[in-house]
Amino acid sequence: MTHQPVIILVNPQMGENIGASARAMLNCGLTELRLVAPRDGWPSESAAANAAGADVVIDNAKVYATTKEAVADLDFVYATTGRVHQLNIPIDTAEQAVQRLRAHDGRSGVLFGPERTGLVGDDVALASRILTFPLNPDYKSLNLAQAVLLVSYLWFQAGGVPEPSQYHRTKKTRPATKADLDGLMEHLTTELDAASFFTSPNKRPSMLLNLRAAFSRMEPTEQDVLTWRGIIKALVKGQR
Amino acid sequence: MTHQPVIILVNPQMGENIGASARAMLNCGLTELRLVAPRDGWPSESAAANAAGADVVIDNAKVYATTKEAVADLDFVYATTGRVHQLNIPIDTAEQAVQRLRAHDGRSGVLFGPERTGLVGDDVALASRILTFPLNPDYKSLNLAQAVLLVSYLWFQAGGVPEPSQYHRTKKTRPATKADLDGLMEHLTTELDAASFFTSPNKRPSMLLNLRAAFSRMEPTEQDVLTWRGIIKALVKGQR
Repeated sequence: MTHQPVIILVNPQMGENIGASARAMLNCGLTELRLVAPRDGWPSESAAANAAGADVVIDNAKVYATTKEAVADLDFVYATTGRVHQLNIPIDTAEQAVQRLRAHDGRSGVLFGPERTGLVGDDVALASRILTFPLNPDYKSLNLAQAVLLVSYLWFQAGGVPEPSQYHRTKKTRPATKADLDGLMEHLTTELDAASFFTSPNKRPSMLLNLRAAFSRMEPTEQDVLTWRGIIKALVKGQR
Repeated sequence: MTHQPVIILVNPQMGENIGASARAMLNCGLTELRLVAPRDGWPSESAAANAAGADVVIDNAKVYATTKEAVADLDFVYATTGRVHQLNIPIDTAEQAVQRLRAHDGRSGVLFGPERTGLVGDDVALASRILTFPLNPDYKSLNLAQAVLLVSYLWFQAGGVPEPSQYHRTKKTRPATKADLDGLMEHLTTELDAASFFTSPNKRPSMLLNLRAAFSRMEPTEQDVLTWRGIIKALVKGQR
Protein backbone atom coordinates (compact mmCIF):
# COMPACT_ATOMS: atom_id res chain seq x y z
CA MET A 1 0.00 0.00 0.00
CA THR A 2 1.17 3.49 -0.81
CA HIS A 3 1.80 5.75 2.13
CA GLN A 4 0.67 9.28 1.58
CA PRO A 5 3.55 11.69 1.01
CA VAL A 6 4.43 14.13 3.78
CA ILE A 7 4.12 17.80 2.79
CA ILE A 8 7.06 19.80 4.12
CA LEU A 9 7.01 23.61 4.11
CA VAL A 10 10.51 25.01 4.54
CA ASN A 11 10.63 28.40 6.34
CA PRO A 12 7.10 29.42 5.44
CA GLN A 13 6.59 33.12 6.00
CA MET A 14 2.83 33.65 6.16
CA GLY A 15 0.48 31.79 8.46
CA GLU A 16 -2.22 32.31 5.82
CA ASN A 17 -0.26 30.19 3.39
CA ILE A 18 0.28 27.43 5.93
CA GLY A 19 -3.46 27.38 6.60
CA ALA A 20 -4.36 27.41 2.92
CA SER A 21 -1.86 24.61 2.32
CA ALA A 22 -3.45 22.51 5.06
CA ARG A 23 -6.85 23.05 3.50
CA ALA A 24 -5.60 22.09 0.04
CA MET A 25 -3.97 18.96 1.47
CA LEU A 26 -7.13 17.78 3.19
CA ASN A 27 -9.16 18.47 0.04
CA CYS A 28 -7.03 15.75 -1.49
CA GLY A 29 -6.88 13.39 1.45
CA LEU A 30 -3.40 14.34 2.67
CA THR A 31 -2.95 14.92 6.39
CA GLU A 32 0.76 14.89 7.25
CA LEU A 33 2.22 18.38 7.37
CA ARG A 34 5.73 19.30 8.54
CA LEU A 35 7.08 22.80 9.04
CA VAL A 36 10.73 23.78 9.06
CA ALA A 37 11.27 26.87 11.25
CA PRO A 38 8.16 28.85 10.28
CA ARG A 39 9.04 32.54 10.35
CA ASP A 40 6.29 33.63 12.74
CA GLY A 41 6.53 30.66 15.10
CA TRP A 42 4.08 27.90 15.85
CA PRO A 43 1.20 27.49 16.57
CA SER A 44 -0.12 30.25 14.36
CA GLU A 45 -3.48 31.92 14.64
CA SER A 46 -3.61 32.98 11.02
CA ALA A 47 -2.74 29.45 9.93
CA ALA A 48 -5.62 28.07 11.97
CA ALA A 49 -8.00 30.75 10.67
CA ASN A 50 -7.08 30.04 7.04
CA ALA A 51 -7.27 26.29 7.36
CA ALA A 52 -11.06 26.62 7.14
CA GLY A 53 -11.82 23.49 9.06
CA ALA A 54 -8.76 21.46 8.13
CA ASP A 55 -7.87 21.41 11.82
CA VAL A 56 -6.73 17.82 11.75
CA VAL A 57 -3.84 18.85 9.52
CA ILE A 58 -2.89 21.96 11.49
CA ASP A 59 -3.19 20.29 14.89
CA ASN A 60 -0.95 17.41 13.88
CA ALA A 61 1.66 19.48 12.06
CA LYS A 62 5.20 18.77 13.28
CA VAL A 63 7.81 21.48 13.56
CA TYR A 64 11.53 20.97 12.88
CA ALA A 65 14.53 23.26 13.21
CA THR A 66 16.16 22.19 9.95
CA THR A 67 15.14 20.62 6.66
CA LYS A 68 17.59 17.81 7.26
CA GLU A 69 15.75 16.79 10.43
CA ALA A 70 12.38 17.15 8.75
CA VAL A 71 13.26 14.56 6.10
CA ALA A 72 15.42 12.27 8.28
CA ASP A 73 12.89 9.41 8.45
CA LEU A 74 11.84 9.64 4.79
CA ASP A 75 13.42 7.57 2.03
CA PHE A 76 12.15 9.38 -1.07
CA VAL A 77 11.92 13.14 -1.25
CA TYR A 78 10.98 15.60 -3.96
CA ALA A 79 12.10 19.23 -3.95
CA THR A 80 9.56 21.54 -5.59
CA THR A 81 11.32 24.25 -7.52
CA GLY A 82 11.01 26.16 -10.77
CA ARG A 83 14.51 27.58 -10.61
CA VAL A 84 17.56 26.08 -12.22
CA HIS A 85 19.89 24.64 -9.60
CA GLN A 86 23.47 23.63 -10.33
CA LEU A 87 22.81 20.19 -8.99
CA ASN A 88 22.77 16.93 -10.81
CA ILE A 89 19.30 15.87 -9.68
CA PRO A 90 16.74 14.48 -12.11
CA ILE A 91 13.75 16.72 -12.83
CA ASP A 92 10.16 15.47 -13.14
CA THR A 93 7.00 17.31 -14.04
CA ALA A 94 4.40 17.29 -11.28
CA GLU A 95 2.48 14.67 -13.25
CA GLN A 96 5.49 12.37 -13.45
CA ALA A 97 6.32 12.99 -9.81
CA VAL A 98 2.95 11.88 -8.46
CA GLN A 99 3.26 8.66 -10.45
CA ARG A 100 6.58 7.96 -8.77
CA LEU A 101 5.18 8.88 -5.37
CA ARG A 102 2.27 6.50 -5.92
CA ALA A 103 4.63 3.73 -7.00
CA HIS A 104 7.05 4.27 -4.13
CA ASP A 105 6.56 1.87 -1.34
CA GLY A 106 8.38 3.51 1.61
CA ARG A 107 7.94 6.89 3.26
CA SER A 108 8.00 9.86 0.89
CA GLY A 109 7.79 13.63 1.15
CA VAL A 110 7.61 16.78 -0.95
CA LEU A 111 9.55 19.93 -0.03
CA PHE A 112 8.23 23.44 -0.72
CA GLY A 113 10.36 26.54 -0.19
CA PRO A 114 9.54 29.89 1.41
CA GLU A 115 7.21 32.27 -0.45
CA ARG A 116 9.75 34.82 -1.57
CA THR A 117 12.78 32.79 -2.54
CA GLY A 118 11.80 29.18 -2.97
CA LEU A 119 14.09 26.36 -1.88
CA VAL A 120 17.81 27.06 -1.58
CA GLY A 121 20.42 24.71 -2.97
CA ASP A 122 21.15 23.11 0.41
CA ASP A 123 17.54 22.00 0.71
CA VAL A 124 17.26 20.86 -2.89
CA ALA A 125 20.37 18.73 -2.37
CA LEU A 126 18.49 16.71 0.25
CA ALA A 127 16.00 15.58 -2.36
CA SER A 128 16.05 12.49 -4.53
CA ARG A 129 14.40 14.30 -7.42
CA ILE A 130 13.12 17.73 -8.40
CA LEU A 131 9.42 18.40 -9.02
CA THR A 132 8.58 21.22 -11.38
CA PHE A 133 5.35 22.60 -12.84
CA PRO A 134 5.18 23.13 -16.57
CA LEU A 135 3.64 26.63 -16.45
CA ASN A 136 3.44 29.71 -18.62
CA PRO A 137 7.16 30.37 -19.20
CA ASP A 138 6.55 34.11 -18.98
CA TYR A 139 4.86 33.94 -15.60
CA LYS A 140 5.78 30.97 -13.47
CA SER A 141 5.65 32.38 -9.95
CA LEU A 142 3.21 30.17 -8.08
CA ASN A 143 1.80 30.96 -4.65
CA LEU A 144 2.93 28.47 -1.98
CA ALA A 145 -0.50 27.07 -1.19
CA GLN A 146 -1.27 26.85 -4.91
CA ALA A 147 1.83 24.72 -5.41
CA VAL A 148 0.81 22.48 -2.50
CA LEU A 149 -2.68 22.17 -3.98
CA LEU A 150 -1.41 21.11 -7.40
CA VAL A 151 0.84 18.40 -5.99
CA SER A 152 -1.88 17.18 -3.62
CA TYR A 153 -4.55 17.21 -6.30
CA LEU A 154 -2.45 15.38 -8.87
CA TRP A 155 -1.42 12.83 -6.23
CA PHE A 156 -5.04 12.25 -5.30
CA GLN A 157 -6.14 11.92 -8.93
CA ALA A 158 -3.29 9.53 -9.70
CA GLY A 159 -4.84 7.12 -7.22
CA GLY A 160 -7.78 6.48 -9.49
CA VAL A 161 -10.51 8.30 -7.63
CA PRO A 162 -14.11 7.49 -8.36
CA GLU A 163 -16.04 9.23 -11.10
CA PRO A 164 -18.20 12.17 -10.06
CA SER A 165 -21.38 10.16 -10.40
CA GLN A 166 -20.40 8.47 -7.16
CA TYR A 167 -20.35 11.79 -5.38
CA HIS A 168 -23.33 13.40 -7.01
CA ARG A 169 -26.81 12.20 -7.45
CA THR A 170 -29.11 14.56 -9.25
CA LYS A 171 -32.77 13.82 -9.00
CA LYS A 172 -33.69 11.80 -12.03
CA THR A 173 -36.72 10.05 -13.25
CA ARG A 174 -35.78 7.28 -15.61
CA PRO A 175 -34.15 8.31 -18.88
CA ALA A 176 -36.59 8.65 -21.75
CA THR A 177 -36.73 5.61 -23.99
CA LYS A 178 -36.52 5.88 -27.73
CA ALA A 179 -40.23 5.06 -27.76
CA ASP A 180 -40.90 8.10 -25.54
CA LEU A 181 -38.99 10.20 -28.04
CA ASP A 182 -40.89 8.65 -30.94
CA GLY A 183 -44.15 9.61 -29.24
CA LEU A 184 -42.94 13.15 -28.69
CA MET A 185 -41.80 13.50 -32.29
CA GLU A 186 -45.09 12.14 -33.61
CA HIS A 187 -47.02 14.56 -31.46
CA LEU A 188 -44.88 17.51 -32.51
CA THR A 189 -44.94 16.53 -36.19
CA THR A 190 -48.73 16.25 -36.23
CA GLU A 191 -49.13 19.69 -34.72
CA LEU A 192 -46.51 21.24 -36.99
CA ASP A 193 -48.25 19.80 -40.04
CA ALA A 194 -51.57 21.12 -38.77
CA ALA A 195 -49.96 24.54 -38.38
CA SER A 196 -48.44 24.38 -41.89
CA PHE A 197 -44.99 24.77 -40.39
CA PHE A 198 -43.15 23.07 -43.23
CA THR A 199 -43.41 25.61 -46.00
CA SER A 200 -41.06 23.72 -48.30
CA PRO A 201 -42.03 20.05 -48.37
CA ASN A 202 -38.66 18.76 -49.54
CA LYS A 203 -36.98 20.17 -46.47
CA ARG A 204 -39.47 18.50 -44.15
CA PRO A 205 -37.60 15.18 -43.69
CA SER A 206 -34.27 16.78 -42.85
CA MET A 207 -35.86 19.29 -40.47
CA LEU A 208 -37.58 16.46 -38.65
CA LEU A 209 -34.34 14.52 -38.43
CA ASN A 210 -32.57 17.51 -36.98
CA LEU A 211 -35.30 18.01 -34.40
CA ARG A 212 -35.07 14.38 -33.45
CA ALA A 213 -31.29 14.68 -33.12
CA ALA A 214 -31.68 17.75 -30.92
CA PHE A 215 -34.01 15.88 -28.57
CA SER A 216 -31.61 12.94 -28.44
CA ARG A 217 -28.71 15.22 -27.62
CA MET A 218 -30.71 16.60 -24.74
CA GLU A 219 -30.67 13.12 -23.16
CA PRO A 220 -34.09 13.81 -21.69
CA THR A 221 -35.72 12.03 -18.81
CA GLU A 222 -39.21 10.60 -19.02
CA GLN A 223 -40.37 13.68 -17.11
CA ASP A 224 -38.72 16.00 -19.67
CA VAL A 225 -40.65 14.32 -22.48
CA LEU A 226 -43.90 14.73 -20.58
CA THR A 227 -43.09 18.41 -20.05
CA TRP A 228 -42.42 18.92 -23.74
CA ARG A 229 -45.67 17.26 -24.66
CA GLY A 230 -47.44 19.52 -22.19
CA ILE A 231 -45.78 22.53 -23.78
CA ILE A 232 -46.90 21.53 -27.27
CA LYS A 233 -50.44 20.98 -26.05
CA ALA A 234 -50.52 24.31 -24.21
CA LEU A 235 -49.15 26.30 -27.13
CA VAL A 236 -51.66 24.77 -29.53
CA LYS A 237 -54.67 25.11 -27.26
CA GLY A 238 -53.76 28.38 -25.63
CA GLN A 239 -54.76 30.59 -28.52
CA ARG A 240 -57.96 28.87 -29.47
CA MET B 1 -7.74 26.79 -33.02
CA THR B 2 -9.01 26.60 -29.48
CA HIS B 3 -9.92 29.89 -27.91
CA GLN B 4 -8.94 30.12 -24.29
CA PRO B 5 -11.91 29.83 -21.95
CA VAL B 6 -13.10 32.96 -20.15
CA ILE B 7 -12.95 32.71 -16.35
CA ILE B 8 -16.08 34.20 -14.78
CA LEU B 9 -16.24 34.91 -11.06
CA VAL B 10 -19.84 35.38 -9.93
CA ASN B 11 -20.25 37.77 -6.97
CA PRO B 12 -16.73 37.32 -5.63
CA GLN B 13 -16.50 38.63 -2.08
CA MET B 14 -12.77 39.12 -1.43
CA GLY B 15 -10.46 41.19 -3.60
CA GLU B 16 -7.66 38.89 -2.43
CA ASN B 17 -9.32 35.97 -4.11
CA ILE B 18 -9.85 37.88 -7.34
CA GLY B 19 -6.16 38.78 -7.34
CA ALA B 20 -5.07 35.23 -6.54
CA SER B 21 -7.35 33.94 -9.30
CA ALA B 22 -5.79 36.33 -11.80
CA ARG B 23 -2.34 35.12 -10.81
CA ALA B 24 -3.34 31.47 -11.14
CA MET B 25 -4.85 32.17 -14.56
CA LEU B 26 -1.72 33.84 -15.90
CA ASN B 27 0.43 31.01 -14.51
CA CYS B 28 -1.43 28.87 -16.99
CA GLY B 29 -1.63 31.29 -19.88
CA LEU B 30 -5.23 32.42 -19.36
CA THR B 31 -5.93 36.15 -19.53
CA GLU B 32 -9.68 36.73 -19.91
CA LEU B 33 -11.35 37.43 -16.58
CA ARG B 34 -14.96 38.52 -16.08
CA LEU B 35 -16.54 39.58 -12.81
CA VAL B 36 -20.24 39.56 -12.02
CA ALA B 37 -21.08 42.24 -9.45
CA PRO B 38 -18.03 41.89 -7.19
CA ARG B 39 -19.13 42.58 -3.62
CA ASP B 40 -16.61 45.34 -2.89
CA GLY B 41 -16.81 47.06 -6.26
CA TRP B 42 -14.24 47.41 -8.99
CA PRO B 43 -11.40 48.25 -9.41
CA SER B 44 -10.11 46.69 -6.21
CA GLU B 45 -6.87 47.54 -4.44
CA SER B 46 -6.62 44.20 -2.72
CA ALA B 47 -7.19 42.39 -5.99
CA ALA B 48 -4.36 44.31 -7.62
CA ALA B 49 -2.08 43.71 -4.63
CA ASN B 50 -2.73 39.97 -4.62
CA ALA B 51 -2.34 39.56 -8.36
CA ALA B 52 1.43 39.64 -7.79
CA GLY B 53 2.26 40.97 -11.21
CA ALA B 54 -0.61 39.48 -13.18
CA ASP B 55 -1.71 43.01 -13.99
CA VAL B 56 -2.63 42.19 -17.56
CA VAL B 57 -5.44 40.01 -16.25
CA ILE B 58 -6.68 42.46 -13.62
CA ASP B 59 -6.49 45.50 -15.90
CA ASN B 60 -8.49 43.82 -18.63
CA ALA B 61 -11.12 42.26 -16.38
CA LYS B 62 -14.66 43.07 -17.48
CA VAL B 63 -17.45 43.70 -15.01
CA TYR B 64 -21.09 42.69 -15.54
CA ALA B 65 -24.24 43.26 -13.52
CA THR B 66 -25.63 39.77 -14.02
CA THR B 67 -24.33 36.31 -14.86
CA LYS B 68 -26.64 36.21 -17.82
CA GLU B 69 -24.94 39.24 -19.36
CA ALA B 70 -21.50 37.87 -18.55
CA VAL B 71 -22.11 34.72 -20.61
CA ALA B 72 -24.26 36.26 -23.34
CA ASP B 73 -21.61 36.03 -26.08
CA LEU B 74 -20.36 32.57 -25.09
CA ASP B 75 -21.65 29.37 -26.61
CA PHE B 76 -20.27 26.74 -24.22
CA VAL B 77 -20.25 27.33 -20.49
CA TYR B 78 -19.28 25.20 -17.50
CA ALA B 79 -20.63 25.84 -14.00
CA THR B 80 -18.14 24.85 -11.31
CA THR B 81 -19.98 23.38 -8.37
CA GLY B 82 -19.61 20.61 -5.86
CA ARG B 83 -23.17 20.86 -4.62
CA VAL B 84 -26.03 18.76 -5.85
CA HIS B 85 -28.42 20.83 -7.93
CA GLN B 86 -31.85 19.62 -8.94
CA LEU B 87 -31.08 20.25 -12.58
CA ASN B 88 -30.53 17.67 -15.21
CA ILE B 89 -27.18 18.98 -16.44
CA PRO B 90 -24.39 16.54 -17.20
CA ILE B 91 -21.50 16.52 -14.77
CA ASP B 92 -17.86 16.24 -15.78
CA THR B 93 -14.74 15.94 -13.69
CA ALA B 94 -12.34 18.83 -14.13
CA GLU B 95 -10.17 16.52 -16.24
CA GLN B 96 -13.04 15.68 -18.55
CA ALA B 97 -14.11 19.31 -18.70
CA VAL B 98 -10.76 20.64 -19.89
CA GLN B 99 -10.76 18.08 -22.68
CA ARG B 100 -14.14 19.36 -23.84
CA LEU B 101 -13.01 22.97 -23.52
CA ARG B 102 -9.94 22.17 -25.62
CA ALA B 103 -12.04 20.43 -28.23
CA HIS B 104 -14.69 23.14 -28.36
CA ASP B 105 -14.30 25.43 -31.25
CA GLY B 106 -16.35 28.52 -30.28
CA ARG B 107 -16.18 30.82 -27.28
CA SER B 108 -16.28 29.07 -23.92
CA GLY B 109 -16.29 30.06 -20.27
CA VAL B 110 -16.17 28.62 -16.78
CA LEU B 111 -18.35 29.99 -13.97
CA PHE B 112 -17.18 30.08 -10.34
CA GLY B 113 -19.54 31.05 -7.51
CA PRO B 114 -18.98 33.30 -4.50
CA GLU B 115 -16.71 32.09 -1.71
CA ARG B 116 -19.32 31.33 0.90
CA THR B 117 -22.17 29.80 -1.06
CA GLY B 118 -20.95 28.77 -4.48
CA LEU B 119 -23.15 29.10 -7.54
CA VAL B 120 -26.91 29.27 -7.12
CA GLY B 121 -29.28 27.28 -9.32
CA ASP B 122 -30.11 30.26 -11.54
CA ASP B 123 -26.45 30.53 -12.52
CA VAL B 124 -25.93 26.81 -12.91
CA ALA B 125 -28.91 26.66 -15.28
CA LEU B 126 -27.06 29.00 -17.65
CA ALA B 127 -24.38 26.37 -18.13
CA SER B 128 -24.15 23.61 -20.69
CA ARG B 129 -22.39 21.30 -18.25
CA ILE B 130 -21.24 21.12 -14.64
CA LEU B 131 -17.57 20.91 -13.70
CA THR B 132 -16.75 19.22 -10.44
CA PHE B 133 -13.55 18.25 -8.68
CA PRO B 134 -13.31 14.70 -7.47
CA LEU B 135 -11.96 15.56 -4.01
CA ASN B 136 -11.87 14.02 -0.58
CA PRO B 137 -15.60 13.37 -0.05
CA ASP B 138 -15.25 14.31 3.61
CA TYR B 139 -13.70 17.69 2.90
CA LYS B 140 -14.52 19.16 -0.46
CA SER B 141 -14.65 22.90 0.24
CA LEU B 142 -12.15 24.46 -2.12
CA ASN B 143 -10.97 28.06 -1.92
CA LEU B 144 -12.09 30.16 -4.91
CA ALA B 145 -8.62 30.88 -6.27
CA GLN B 146 -7.64 27.23 -5.74
CA ALA B 147 -10.58 26.15 -7.87
CA VAL B 148 -9.58 28.64 -10.58
CA LEU B 149 -6.01 27.34 -10.44
CA LEU B 150 -7.01 23.71 -10.87
CA VAL B 151 -9.16 24.45 -13.91
CA SER B 152 -6.51 26.71 -15.42
CA TYR B 153 -3.70 24.25 -14.76
CA LEU B 154 -5.55 21.27 -16.14
CA TRP B 155 -6.59 23.30 -19.19
CA PHE B 156 -2.99 24.34 -19.79
CA GLN B 157 -1.69 20.78 -19.41
CA ALA B 158 -4.37 19.45 -21.71
CA GLY B 159 -2.98 21.58 -24.54
CA GLY B 160 -2.27 19.69 -27.71
CA VAL B 161 -4.54 16.72 -27.01
CA PRO B 162 -7.81 17.87 -28.54
CA GLU B 163 -10.51 15.23 -28.65
CA PRO B 164 -12.86 14.95 -31.56
CA SER B 165 -15.74 17.30 -30.96
CA GLN B 166 -18.68 15.66 -29.34
CA TYR B 167 -21.31 16.00 -32.00
CA HIS B 168 -21.19 15.78 -35.72
CA ARG B 169 -22.85 18.86 -37.07
CA THR B 170 -23.96 18.46 -40.63
CA LYS B 171 -24.86 22.07 -41.20
CA LYS B 172 -22.05 24.28 -39.92
CA THR B 173 -23.89 27.28 -38.59
CA ARG B 174 -22.28 28.83 -35.56
CA PRO B 175 -23.12 27.47 -32.10
CA ALA B 176 -25.94 29.36 -30.39
CA THR B 177 -24.76 31.95 -27.89
CA LYS B 178 -26.25 32.25 -24.44
CA ALA B 179 -28.00 35.41 -25.70
CA ASP B 180 -29.67 33.37 -28.43
CA LEU B 181 -30.88 30.98 -25.75
CA ASP B 182 -32.10 33.89 -23.61
CA GLY B 183 -34.18 35.09 -26.53
CA LEU B 184 -35.61 31.64 -27.09
CA MET B 185 -36.47 31.21 -23.41
CA GLU B 186 -38.15 34.63 -23.28
CA HIS B 187 -40.20 33.81 -26.34
CA LEU B 188 -41.24 30.43 -25.01
CA THR B 189 -42.00 31.76 -21.53
CA THR B 190 -44.21 34.53 -22.90
CA GLU B 191 -46.22 32.08 -24.95
CA LEU B 192 -46.47 29.55 -22.14
CA ASP B 193 -47.76 32.26 -19.81
CA ALA B 194 -50.26 33.37 -22.45
CA ALA B 195 -51.40 29.77 -22.71
CA SER B 196 -51.68 29.41 -18.91
CA PHE B 197 -49.24 26.52 -19.04
CA PHE B 198 -48.04 26.95 -15.47
CA THR B 199 -50.99 25.73 -13.47
CA SER B 200 -49.10 25.86 -10.17
CA PRO B 201 -47.26 29.18 -9.91
CA ASN B 202 -44.72 28.00 -7.34
CA LYS B 203 -43.45 25.35 -9.72
CA ARG B 204 -42.98 27.88 -12.52
CA PRO B 205 -39.39 28.94 -11.66
CA SER B 206 -38.04 25.41 -11.39
CA MET B 207 -39.81 24.32 -14.56
CA LEU B 208 -38.30 27.25 -16.42
CA LEU B 209 -34.86 26.45 -15.03
CA ASN B 210 -35.19 22.87 -16.17
CA LEU B 211 -36.29 23.94 -19.62
CA ARG B 212 -33.34 26.23 -19.86
CA ALA B 213 -31.05 23.44 -18.74
CA ALA B 214 -32.53 21.16 -21.38
CA PHE B 215 -31.82 23.69 -24.13
CA SER B 216 -28.27 24.19 -22.84
CA ARG B 217 -27.68 20.47 -22.82
CA MET B 218 -28.71 20.34 -26.44
CA GLU B 219 -25.76 22.60 -27.34
CA PRO B 220 -27.84 24.01 -30.17
CA THR B 221 -26.63 25.87 -33.22
CA GLU B 222 -27.94 29.31 -34.10
CA GLN B 223 -30.08 27.57 -36.73
CA ASP B 224 -31.53 25.22 -34.10
CA VAL B 225 -32.64 28.22 -32.04
CA LEU B 226 -34.27 29.81 -35.09
CA THR B 227 -36.05 26.54 -35.79
CA TRP B 228 -37.34 26.35 -32.23
CA ARG B 229 -38.62 29.88 -32.41
CA GLY B 230 -40.33 29.04 -35.68
CA ILE B 231 -41.94 26.03 -34.05
CA ILE B 232 -43.29 28.07 -31.15
CA LYS B 233 -44.67 30.68 -33.54
CA ALA B 234 -46.25 28.04 -35.75
CA LEU B 235 -47.88 26.17 -32.89
CA VAL B 236 -49.31 29.34 -31.42
CA LYS B 237 -50.58 30.78 -34.70
CA GLY B 238 -51.60 27.53 -36.33
CA GLN B 239 -54.83 27.14 -34.45
CA ARG B 240 -56.03 30.68 -34.59
